[in-house]
Amino acid sequence: MKVQLPLAEVYAVLEPGPVLLLSTSHAGRGNLMPMSWHCMLEFEPPLVGCVVSAANFTFAALSETGQCVLNVPTVELAEQVVGCGNCSGRELDKFARFGLTARPAKQVSAPLVAECYANLECRVTDRQLVGGYNFFILEVVEAWHNPAVSAPRTLHHRGFGKFMVAGEELSLPSAMR
Amino acid sequence: MKVQLPLAEVYAVLEPGPVLLLSTSHAGRGNLMPMSWHCMLEFEPPLVGCVVSAANFTFAALSETGQCVLNVPTVELAEQVVGCGNCSGRELDKFARFGLTARPAKQVSAPLVAECYANLECRVTDRQLVGGYNFFILEVVEAWHNPAVSAPRTLHHRGFGKFMVAGEELSLPSAMR
Repeated sequence: MKVQLPLAEVYAVLEPGPVLLLSTSHAGRGNLMPMSWHCMLEFEPPLVGCVVSAANFTFAALSETGQCVLNVPTVELAEQVVGCGNCSGRELDKFARFGLTARPAKQVSAPLVAECYANLECRVTDRQLVGGYNFFILEVVEAWHNPAVSAPRTLHHRGFGKFMVAGEELSLPSAMR
Repeated sequence: MKVQLPLAEVYAVLEPGPVLLLSTSHAGRGNLMPMSWHCMLEFEPPLVGCVVSAANFTFAALSETGQCVLNVPTVELAEQVVGCGNCSGRELDKFARFGLTARPAKQVSAPLVAECYANLECRVTDRQLVGGYNFFILEVVEAWHNPAVSAPRTLHHRGFGKFMVAGEELSLPSAMR
């Protein structure tokens, strides 16, 4: 079961660094793309910058609809995440191919991936760096998480299919939000 | 001992997601700031976007010099990293306060932190999003790493002083660079 996440807490879900599944919907078709090049830009409203290569099928969907969902998978989905990166939505339906469940979002047309422990509904709010860097600035407009997952075993891509799986947690007295 | 890292491999050091220590030098003083909001923008030459709050002492140094080093600490430095975030370079010398060693960089005026397992010398190349988002675009011009560290136990900030320490690695056949 997922519950709404206060938008001011979105930054902690994007820890920073987990590999995400970016979902879009375009011309009646849902699609998925693993993404690692993203970062928070503002706490609230939460802004996220991310790179989507113009070579990807997702680029057209994101450019044309201005909407997407950032889905946060954990290690149990590692094979599906990598599989989504090894094929193109031009040729197949990745939800069907990898047995992932598309659920309707509340505010955007792109689907939520039910199997991911958190889902962030986003709209593109600034395109000024798309031409130069393929860098989209997204505003998170609705956020969902599974409150039972307190220390998510997220994936972090170290290149060429080598992934670090999130390990232990430690707490240190910090003034850093 | 550190050796030069091919610039095309920088993206794998910034996995993405480790907390970094951003070092600057300004008016004869070195300074350090922990940073989590950063992401790769291009493989080669390596471009990194990062957020440095205008409220931070580092903002002035980075704005005025256009130079910095991104130092990648591992969990052994967790207390020093958090300590650097809990005080300001306006008031003290963080290298001295936390027992960190400043080494001269090859191409920039900012110092390398010797205790970090990798160091990336950077120049600011694009400031168009500094006004709106405090987002600097850096080019990595020289990179160093300790080749003995193959699976670095990096730190990932989950908010309010809670850190995830990099765990196990797994490899999956991937077409993703």
